[in-house]
Amino acid sequence: MFPKSKRNKVTRLPKRGAYDKATIYKILDAGFLAHVGFVTDGQPFVIPTAYGREGDTLYIHGSAASRMLKDLTKGIPVCVTVTHLDGLVLARSSYNHSMNYRSVVAFGNAHLVEGEEKERALYLISENILKGRWEEAREPNEKELKATSVLAIPIDQASAKIRTGAPGDFKEDYELPIWAGVLPVQTLYGNVIADEQNLDGLEVPPSAKHVENKPLNP
Amino acid sequence: MFPKSKRNKVTRLPKRGAYDKATIYKILDAGFLAHVGFVTDGQPFVIPTAYGREGDTLYIHGSAASRMLKDLTKGIPVCVTVTHLDGLVLARSSYNHSMNYRSVVAFGNAHLVEGEEKERALYLISENILKGRWEEAREPNEKELKATSVLAIPIDQASAKIRTGAPGDFKEDYELPIWAGVLPVQTLYGNVIADEQNLDGLEVPPSAKHVENKPLNP
Repeated sequence: MFPKSKRNKVTRLPKRGAYDKATIYKILDAGFLAHVGFVTDGQPFVIPTAYGREGDTLYIHGSAASRMLKDLTKGIPVCVTVTHLDGLVLARSSYNHSMNYRSVVAFGNAHLVEGEEKERALYLISENILKGRWEEAREPNEKELKATSVLAIPIDQASAKIRTGAPGDFKEDYELPIWAGVLPVQTLYGNVIADEQNLDGLEVPPSAKHVENKPLNP
Repeated sequence: MFPKSKRNKVTRLPKRGAYDKATIYKILDAGFLAHVGFVTDGQPFVIPTAYGREGDTLYIHGSAASRMLKDLTKGIPVCVTVTHLDGLVLARSSYNHSMNYRSVVAFGNAHLVEGEEKERALYLISENILKGRWEEAREPNEKELKATSVLAIPIDQASAKIRTGAPGDFKEDYELPIWAGVLPVQTLYGNVIADEQNLDGLEVPPSAKHVENKPLNP
C-alpha cells in the first residue's frame, strides 16, 4: 500500500481510487507507454515514454542528448501516468457519459543509473515492451550504451483509478427512450510486417508471433 | 505554423518534428484522450482527460470539485500531450528498436469559460469523443452545467512528432541473421454492449453504430 496524502489522493470519485501495490503494478505491467511529467523553469512538460518496472522502481531510457533525460537527472520531481482506455460509456444523459479505463499516477524523483543496474534496466524496459525480444536482437555495444541514458524513478507514492461496467444514470433518466451502453475499446497488435531487407529464410520470431493479433494492455 | 522556441522545439531526432497547424490538428483531431500536465507547489501532475478542439483552442471539462480543474483555473501553464501508438519497430539491434507513433505536445494557459462558450465547448468535447452522441442523449440541465467546469486552453505553441515505416538499422547490422519488422498497433472499438436496463425496442444509435469495430485514432 502506498502512503496516501493530498498529492496522490483520488479526490474526484474516491470510490474509483486504489492505493495497494498489487492493483497499481497490475495496471503498470499491462502497458509500456507512460506520459512522464516534469517541470523546467515553472513550465510543465509531458512526454510519452516507454518504461519498465522492477519492485517499486520504474525505469525509463532515452538518448543522452534528450532534453527530458537531461532535465530529469537533476533529481526533480516526476509524475508518471499510465492510462489504458477500455471503453466509452454512453449514458442516457450527456452528464453521465464516462469512460471505462485503468490508470495509474505515480510520483517520485528520478536519478541516473550506470553499470550493471543500467544494463538490467534496459533489459527490463525491453522485456516490458516485448517479452523475448532482447534475446533475439543484437545487444547494445559500449558506444550505444554510452549514448543511452537510463533513469530510475523509485515510486514514493501512487494511486490507481479504475472504472468498469455499465453506465450509471440518474433514476428518472432510466425511463427515457434513449439507448445506453458501452462501446468497448481495445488496443491490439496486428499482423507483423517483415522488413523488406531481411535476409532470406528468416522466420517471424517468437516475441512477435506471441503477441500478433492480441491485445496490448489486457 | 506555431512559433518555434526552446520550449516546443523537437531537439531529439528533429527530422521527426513538425510545427504546422495542419499536421498538429490532424493528430489532435484523431483522438480524444490527452494527458494534461500542470504544476502545483513545484510538483508536476499528469492527468488523463478528454478534450475537444476549435481553431487554436483546446477544451477540457470536469467536475467543478476536481483538483485539476480548480488548479488550472488559476491560469497556470499547461502542457497537453496526445499520443497515438501505431506500432513497435523491431530492429536488428536493440539500440535501434523504436515505435511508430503520432504525438503532439501543446502549451498554453487555461481559463474558465462560462455561458454560451461553455455549452459550445461541452458540445465540442462530446462530438470529438463520439460524433452524433450529443444529439442522442439528454442535454445537461442547469444543475449539471453548474457542477461541470469547462476550461479553454488557447494553444500558444505546439509541436508534433511522427515516426512511420520500417526499422532503421546500422549498415553492418543488415547482414545479421536477425528478423526485423514492424508489429502494427491499432486501437479499435469493439461490438457495443447494450445496457441491461434499456427500454424495450431501443436500437443501437447511429453514433455507436458508426464506429463499431473501427479504429479509434485512424
